[in-house]
Amino acid sequence: MGRVTVREKILRIREGAVSDRVDTLVVEEPLEVRVNGRPLTVTMRTPGNDFDLAVGFLAGEGVVHRSDEVVGIRYCAGSTTEGSNTYNIVDVALAPGVVVPEASVERNFYTSSSCGLCGKASLDAVRTASRWTVTEDPVALTPATLSELPEKMRAAQRVFERTGGLHAAGLFTAEGDLVAVREDVGRHNAVDKLVGWALQHGRLPLRETALMVSGRASFELAQKALMAGIPVLAAVSAPSSLAVELAAESGLTLVGFLRGSSMNVYTRQERILA
Amino acid sequence: MGRVTVREKILRIREGAVSDRVDTLVVEEPLEVRVNGRPLTVTMRTPGNDFDLAVGFLAGEGVVHRSDEVVGIRYCAGSTTEGSNTYNIVDVALAPGVVVPEASVERNFYTSSSCGLCGKASLDAVRTASRWTVTEDPVALTPATLSELPEKMRAAQRVFERTGGLHAAGLFTAEGDLVAVREDVGRHNAVDKLVGWALQHGRLPLRETALMVSGRASFELAQKALMAGIPVLAAVSAPSSLAVELAAESGLTLVGFLRGSSMNVYTRQERILA
Repeated sequence: MGRVTVREKILRIREGAVSDRVDTLVVEEPLEVRVNGRPLTVTMRTPGNDFDLAVGFLAGEGVVHRSDEVVGIRYCAGSTTEGSNTYNIVDVALAPGVVVPEASVERNFYTSSSCGLCGKASLDAVRTASRWTVTEDPVALTPATLSELPEKMRAAQRVFERTGGLHAAGLFTAEGDLVAVREDVGRHNAVDKLVGWALQHGRLPLRETALMVSGRASFELAQKALMAGIPVLAAVSAPSSLAVELAAESGLTLVGFLRGSSMNVYTRQERILA
Repeated sequence: MGRVTVREKILRIREGAVSDRVDTLVVEEPLEVRVNGRPLTVTMRTPGNDFDLAVGFLAGEGVVHRSDEVVGIRYCAGSTTEGSNTYNIVDVALAPGVVVPEASVERNFYTSSSCGLCGKASLDAVRTASRWTVTEDPVALTPATLSELPEKMRAAQRVFERTGGLHAAGLFTAEGDLVAVREDVGRHNAVDKLVGWALQHGRLPLRETALMVSGRASFELAQKALMAGIPVLAAVSAPSSLAVELAAESGLTLVGFLRGSSMNVYTRQERILA
């Protein structure tokens, strides 16, 4: 795409010394996801892997689960006043019979329970939407293997080095081998790109894998892991209460503060100590 | 609210030593924002300052600008199966004449331009929705003042120390005095809480102030600063390309990588060197 980074003139201040520099910035642009021609959502993302992002988003919402449920993806419309395509609108054509989500899918997802709006309702919604479970997944990772994941992911990030501005999501085997890594200004998007790639290659559910994320482990990231059938989620920073609740209820192993040889294991700890 | 943190049993691994611990987690719960009784959006947030969050969100979307445009806010409905209120649904009553936003407000915000969907359209949308400009704001901050903001904000964070899991947004005067700080699992929410508080106290536009954020400077954070009339946005981490574009076009001073006495100034640099 050639639009992942741009260069800008900046003023750099270091210990009182002021200098003009050219800095590399990560590109952020809106992406509109359409389904069968109808607008569904807009996300601010880093261009690249846009088809994966669209499909991964739909997988996270429980709309698609298998590659044959997606019959076509294309860039559409979205020309600028100069007539050039913005490549910021993606249309996903679903197979006949796949239920097309409402434009308010995100809100429906959280409020589909009868108990008003609460954390429990959000957990119920994930369970209802998920096609598979990770409870019985026999995956086991040693602490030594886990401790190597952040560095392996960082080494595979192409853009972070130049901008310092990207979140990453990495998919690993139980032996700690990197399967794929994706980057984005938005950490949810990085996971969606990874899951969308996997779905289109017929890899869902992603059994016996671990998902490593560069930031915190929020409810939504735990949700996305589960919707892809991933049994282990590891994060560099803190998890939220609802991420831990969802993990506990769903049999997801949740690891936080994974830094060097240190980590906290919040749920399903036997997979780490096995 | 008493729901900002929870304690959970975890497994802690440090340098190969494994121990059972009780860890403090930041609470994440869904909040549904309604306007005049109709659902508008759901955000995952840390409970507390919910009315500020709802009003700040509406300010960021250009729905409200002054305190008298909000005539009432209350928790509503949302009882659990046990009948207790979840305190996760907030209804904002707008004054007569204030245009009630569509439930698809977020998407409309980005696609209201005629040029298809592109970064430029996003910039145009902010300009159209904004009630005031910061271009002429005479604020000036020295690098020394800026370099003290991260530490001052961290010192004022009540919850971060215990959880390591919260983003923060701090509002400062040009002299570096802290006006207010808000925390949340979501960085957008922390800014919304701050802006909503300011709006309800008749403080918008927030002229001659600086907004400090704990993470990166995305387009949406720059947008929120501008919609509140804040002339300076400073971030601990990297800005995105679109945040810098919006700042340049709107006369917002954007500072990134603010760490110790080091920082990068991306736009309107004369306010820092004045």
